[in-house]
Amino acid sequence: MTSRIIVTYHVTAPADAIEARARGIAVEQSVEMPVEAVTDQRVLDEIVGEVRDITELSRGLYEVTLGLATETVGLEAGQLLNMIYGNTSIQPDTVLVDAIFPPEILEAFGGPRHGIQGLRDRVGVPDRALTCSALKPQGLPVPGLADLAYRFALGGLDFIKDDHGLANQHYSPYAERVPVIAAAVRRASAETGVPTRYIPSLTGDLDQLREQMRIARAEGLDCVMIQPMIAGLPAMHTLVRENPEVAFFTHPTMTGAARIDPPFLHGSLFRLMGGDAVIYTNHGGRFAFTRETCVTLGQHATRPWGALKPALPVPAGGMTLDRVPEMIECYGTDVMLLIGGGLLLARERLVEETRTFCDHVAALSADAAPPPAAVAD
Amino acid sequence: MTSRIIVTYHVTAPADAIEARARGIAVEQSVEMPVEAVTDQRVLDEIVGEVRDITELSRGLYEVTLGLATETVGLEAGQLLNMIYGNTSIQPDTVLVDAIFPPEILEAFGGPRHGIQGLRDRVGVPDRALTCSALKPQGLPVPGLADLAYRFALGGLDFIKDDHGLANQHYSPYAERVPVIAAAVRRASAETGVPTRYIPSLTGDLDQLREQMRIARAEGLDCVMIQPMIAGLPAMHTLVRENPEVAFFTHPTMTGAARIDPPFLHGSLFRLMGGDAVIYTNHGGRFAFTRETCVTLGQHATRPWGALKPALPVPAGGMTLDRVPEMIECYGTDVMLLIGGGLLLARERLVEETRTFCDHVAALSADAAPPPAAVAD
Repeated sequence: MTSRIIVTYHVTAPADAIEARARGIAVEQSVEMPVEAVTDQRVLDEIVGEVRDITELSRGLYEVTLGLATETVGLEAGQLLNMIYGNTSIQPDTVLVDAIFPPEILEAFGGPRHGIQGLRDRVGVPDRALTCSALKPQGLPVPGLADLAYRFALGGLDFIKDDHGLANQHYSPYAERVPVIAAAVRRASAETGVPTRYIPSLTGDLDQLREQMRIARAEGLDCVMIQPMIAGLPAMHTLVRENPEVAFFTHPTMTGAARIDPPFLHGSLFRLMGGDAVIYTNHGGRFAFTRETCVTLGQHATRPWGALKPALPVPAGGMTLDRVPEMIECYGTDVMLLIGGGLLLARERLVEETRTFCDHVAALSADAAPPPAAVAD
Repeated sequence: MTSRIIVTYHVTAPADAIEARARGIAVEQSVEMPVEAVTDQRVLDEIVGEVRDITELSRGLYEVTLGLATETVGLEAGQLLNMIYGNTSIQPDTVLVDAIFPPEILEAFGGPRHGIQGLRDRVGVPDRALTCSALKPQGLPVPGLADLAYRFALGGLDFIKDDHGLANQHYSPYAERVPVIAAAVRRASAETGVPTRYIPSLTGDLDQLREQMRIARAEGLDCVMIQPMIAGLPAMHTLVRENPEVAFFTHPTMTGAARIDPPFLHGSLFRLMGGDAVIYTNHGGRFAFTRETCVTLGQHATRPWGALKPALPVPAGGMTLDRVPEMIECYGTDVMLLIGGGLLLARERLVEETRTFCDHVAALSADAAPPPAAVAD
């Protein structure tokens, strides 16, 4: 018995074509050549993808389940993505929905090094929903960003992250920005007693990511944000492996719309690669995810999954103070509520608005019902 | 006047909502916060994205053109993608169609180091269409792949590439595979007199890409293939910059279906990052691109564009010998015809079938009409 990754796709096809289409995907995602031209018996037996199941979901829409040989992945992050979706991503009739990975994949990639508990420990919050905001807009010089961070921290936030647009631009270069913001947050923490964490956004190639990580760690920071679909999963996973003491937030930029089912991409794949907290676009904000997608995403991120720690769901993208009750009801308290622009609109009242946000989250968490049940893989 | 990247999207929206939606994208792709909360005048004037134009293409479909501040890119490859599409990729109503980059972007990224002429020089072919095939299936041990390469080269191919599924798996690890295949191709070249080039596929993080590049160069290889959307544009561009003597082939895996218009992604973005030859899925094969998309893609790859060299179009994905006349008619002779499985089906007659392919391409190229006119940017 060869080890297989069980991968599920949704495929649009006529009823009389779906079997051939399923076999086509199985071949595309394995040997990528006509099977009748494969001369090696071991390849035919152990490498060619297998169609495990085809289920009609609705007229013309099928759930196709394949078994893809684990050894084709070579335990490398980029190649994992290449084998489970790769060329098939170019086809308009397919969506990658889910994958069940064998134990050797879970062990090799390892998942979150800290997960929900590790993030809670950092800020000394055992059970309530966590709070976060973002430093914006890009273009603001470093002192302006640091002042914003100081005031957010005075307001009592648990976490403050860089906007994902903050990279290494001349107006706020990373090496200058991060130490000044870290110092501003430390100063505020000394006043409030809240161990607020600053999360810098790491960008660029692996050399630059490593240098930015070095700067972050030199400032005593123990959380960073990365953009997996821009940095590349290989770079992300290497950084996770090299920095087991650091908690990683994943940012959803360039994840595309619904070609990879968001619960799988954020809740499983980014978690598998070591994402401790997964930021995604919440329903009812600026983005189009449904409530059901978001709830399922949260469940994927936190469900029991081998020895992997749960990752913290961070719904975001146009959230406002008045969404807090509904978000805690939706996700329970194992969640981080991220409000950016909605707080920044308070302008000179930023500290007070942030404090209201934090108090609100604490009060509602105390009354919250238990989170929705997670489904084991 | 601040320098702007002019980015075009196709957006689906009701007529009474398109103006607000266009402004929404301009904000998302710049400051990502409510504009009324931006307190810094310079940010308002020079960083916030501008809506330049909105044109109705058909009922409910609009072409939206934005001006995004060049300085937000910080001349970094990943951040370029982040700013021109990033979060907006998560929206189902948008397609990234095109971008006009200012001169400083073209200079910073530099485009192909070799382009069409550099690839022609490598194999001593001044004008006819070039030929290529792929080493498959993955799972075949190294001697089998080397034997295949030897026979392809005996058949007289210009280029032989690794299948993009060949990574660093235990059954054909890169460090073992590449020297043996390179030697097999050299041996065949000595017999045929054809300077056939072997193109290994580089995978993994930047450390692994560099090590694989070192091995390739130690074997005297001067062409490699990379998967930009898996390795990440930052890693790709760093590798291009560090190896100006090497020609880069880009592979389309994980490019997704039509969320970024293929002519822009392959013909402009991959070219900008240094792709000398861009492999894409041709119409009428296993993939769904239309003939028009493919022709436009080829024109984007080769059109006059600042000081950037033209990149060679490599249509592929289920091509067969009988497609050769139509492909040369479609693309002219500045093209590389890549037939993989279609040759492998010949099995023990592989050398003869490859020779037929090469002879066919040479004969048809001699009679070919000039390529379709390129459109300057």
